[in-house]
Amino acid sequence: MRVQYQLIHQDKNTGARYGKLIFADKDGNTQEYETPMFMPVGTQATVKTLSPEQVKATNPGIILANTYHLWLRPGEDVVEKAGGLHAFMNWHGPILTDSGGYQVFSLAHNKKKDITEEGVHFKSELDGSKLFLTPEKSIEIQNKLDSDIAMSFDECPPATADKRYLKNSIERTLRWAERGKKAHQNENQSLFGIVQGGPYEDLRKWSAEETVKLGFDGYAVGGVANDDEEKDAMYKAVEYSVPYLPEDKVRYLMGVGEPVDLVECVKRGIDIFDCVSPTRLARHGNALIKGVKIDPKTGDKKENRINLKNARFTEDFTPLENNCDCYTCKNYTKAYLHHLVKCDEAFGKTLLSIHNIRFLIRLTEKMREAIKNDRYQEFVDEFFGDE
Amino acid sequence: MRVQYQLIHQDKNTGARYGKLIFADKDGNTQEYETPMFMPVGTQATVKTLSPEQVKATNPGIILANTYHLWLRPGEDVVEKAGGLHAFMNWHGPILTDSGGYQVFSLAHNKKKDITEEGVHFKSELDGSKLFLTPEKSIEIQNKLDSDIAMSFDECPPATADKRYLKNSIERTLRWAERGKKAHQNENQSLFGIVQGGPYEDLRKWSAEETVKLGFDGYAVGGVANDDEEKDAMYKAVEYSVPYLPEDKVRYLMGVGEPVDLVECVKRGIDIFDCVSPTRLARHGNALIKGVKIDPKTGDKKENRINLKNARFTEDFTPLENNCDCYTCKNYTKAYLHHLVKCDEAFGKTLLSIHNIRFLIRLTEKMREAIKNDRYQEFVDEFFGDE
Repeated sequence: MRVQYQLIHQDKNTGARYGKLIFADKDGNTQEYETPMFMPVGTQATVKTLSPEQVKATNPGIILANTYHLWLRPGEDVVEKAGGLHAFMNWHGPILTDSGGYQVFSLAHNKKKDITEEGVHFKSELDGSKLFLTPEKSIEIQNKLDSDIAMSFDECPPATADKRYLKNSIERTLRWAERGKKAHQNENQSLFGIVQGGPYEDLRKWSAEETVKLGFDGYAVGGVANDDEEKDAMYKAVEYSVPYLPEDKVRYLMGVGEPVDLVECVKRGIDIFDCVSPTRLARHGNALIKGVKIDPKTGDKKENRINLKNARFTEDFTPLENNCDCYTCKNYTKAYLHHLVKCDEAFGKTLLSIHNIRFLIRLTEKMREAIKNDRYQEFVDEFFGDE
Repeated sequence: MRVQYQLIHQDKNTGARYGKLIFADKDGNTQEYETPMFMPVGTQATVKTLSPEQVKATNPGIILANTYHLWLRPGEDVVEKAGGLHAFMNWHGPILTDSGGYQVFSLAHNKKKDITEEGVHFKSELDGSKLFLTPEKSIEIQNKLDSDIAMSFDECPPATADKRYLKNSIERTLRWAERGKKAHQNENQSLFGIVQGGPYEDLRKWSAEETVKLGFDGYAVGGVANDDEEKDAMYKAVEYSVPYLPEDKVRYLMGVGEPVDLVECVKRGIDIFDCVSPTRLARHGNALIKGVKIDPKTGDKKENRINLKNARFTEDFTPLENNCDCYTCKNYTKAYLHHLVKCDEAFGKTLLSIHNIRFLIRLTEKMREAIKNDRYQEFVDEFFGDE
């Protein structure tokens, strides 16, 4: 399916946008989903520990899959022969695939890679075999996976890169974006461009403007989901990028999924988000809960969560959150979750993943209501008032 | 709920029985399930890797939970405070708990235990702490767990035990059964007795007759699910025990779940079975499939299965079994399962567990049809004809 964004209402007092993503296939069948949206991640063609029905019950829109991982296993040709990713993994809602760029830069064997104008040489994390990913190859893989949204292949420079490096990197990423766009051949798939530029206002502006000139179906802000960076740097990068993106295209902040970041970045005009954190936190026994915590080291506002391994939940026969409508909260107590986590039972990870994903999606649902009623700033104040 | 067995039809040419288990609670609410029946195992108050809804979709009757495991974690008092096992684990069908005896004898720390007339002293497999399980304690735990069927606490002697040892063991197990019966206080729970006797015809007969004299709601044949034993010994133990069990009580063969064994033992008059094998096989990437294999070492007939890790499934876009009605076979290919197993994704274990459990339950459904039509022997011949 190809996607179009429709801006329905912009909050009167902030940059927050309420809108719709309308997906249409070649036969004219459509699916509509509201934004702001949080997209669960199904790295290897499965949202970890969940069935598609369990994912569906969290009321998501798009889900993600990872080009890099699927290129390595099972290979894009296997997925193509299976009839594409939707048929392969039994997910009939929209799918966005990333470009593989982020994984090449973060997961390559020994983190060693050789970036040339042509593409990136690196070794497989799985078996050390030599691999070469180019903008054309990334798009070709995504074409074969047959996701609904493909991402341009970009360089993800390290947070430590200096301005001179970043400038060269952006220029190359723009040339790669153009090459990818030329290579793109799947008429049933949209293609998004990615804005880079690190922490520099002028580079973000330039990257955004040049990327928009190339013309994509949507735009992502990249290079912000770096653990080393402070939150303020992320918000600034968004502020420096968003003003130069067209109103009638969706804006995607890649790899960001902390509740506080969703709240702050929607305020700055972002529409969609993805992150592995809700399922990763779940696999380590954590549940997201209402409220905000202050990081004692950085002073940053962080997500609030509880770890179910804690003995204080042994006889806690209440749900994770009293007012949560998720399957986990409607049917299970903290005492049962504590038991499952202590015993390392798979179903504990499943139940916590369901809650954490639903937690983020509920948050976006509340944002939509606030924006529609021009009270997004009040929503933000209330959200941070829960500290 | 308490259970009653109703024999509806016995196959004209074999000992195979088609019947019903009718569960009734104090308020007169009833649930009915047909036999022969395979009971999935939820050792730690969860059928591994599955939600209750996923278990339910395999069309089971009773599920099992393990007294020993739940005694250690989270403890029977926690489960009681949660409102019993049904509420704790969100399973509203019938639950059978074993007595903990088998686990004490197989899982105790270093396999060391001290069996006295009073009970068994042993150390926890988890932390080495000293534990003492008695017939009264086993029943007390099961009363608090509030399962629908509790099992008597028995000694599970090793397959190598001599006849003199077995005779003493049976006598003690009978005294334990009587003590357990006296200790039993949950009016909403049935209590089953267990026949032991190893491979000896006279001991099995004696154990069965004396256990029946004590009077239980159902009877189990124990001490047969021993990996060291040959299949023929298992079938003989069943043949030596069943004739002395009352017609109007259900007969349960403990710990047995290979398809060939279900087929052979239903022929000999067994009604219900349990085994961890379908979920354990699944977690190792195996799927049960139609047919029978011959063990090259023992000549025994064994289950037929495929391992999804095998590279030959990389591009196999057919389901595990073409005519299987399970969720996995209706929605996923072997290529997808191969991918999930290769990537060690939890959802692969879930999908294979669903198939394997449904495989055994479908087998019992076919048996019921055959018995109702007095063609059980033909069913057996056809089953083994699939070699």
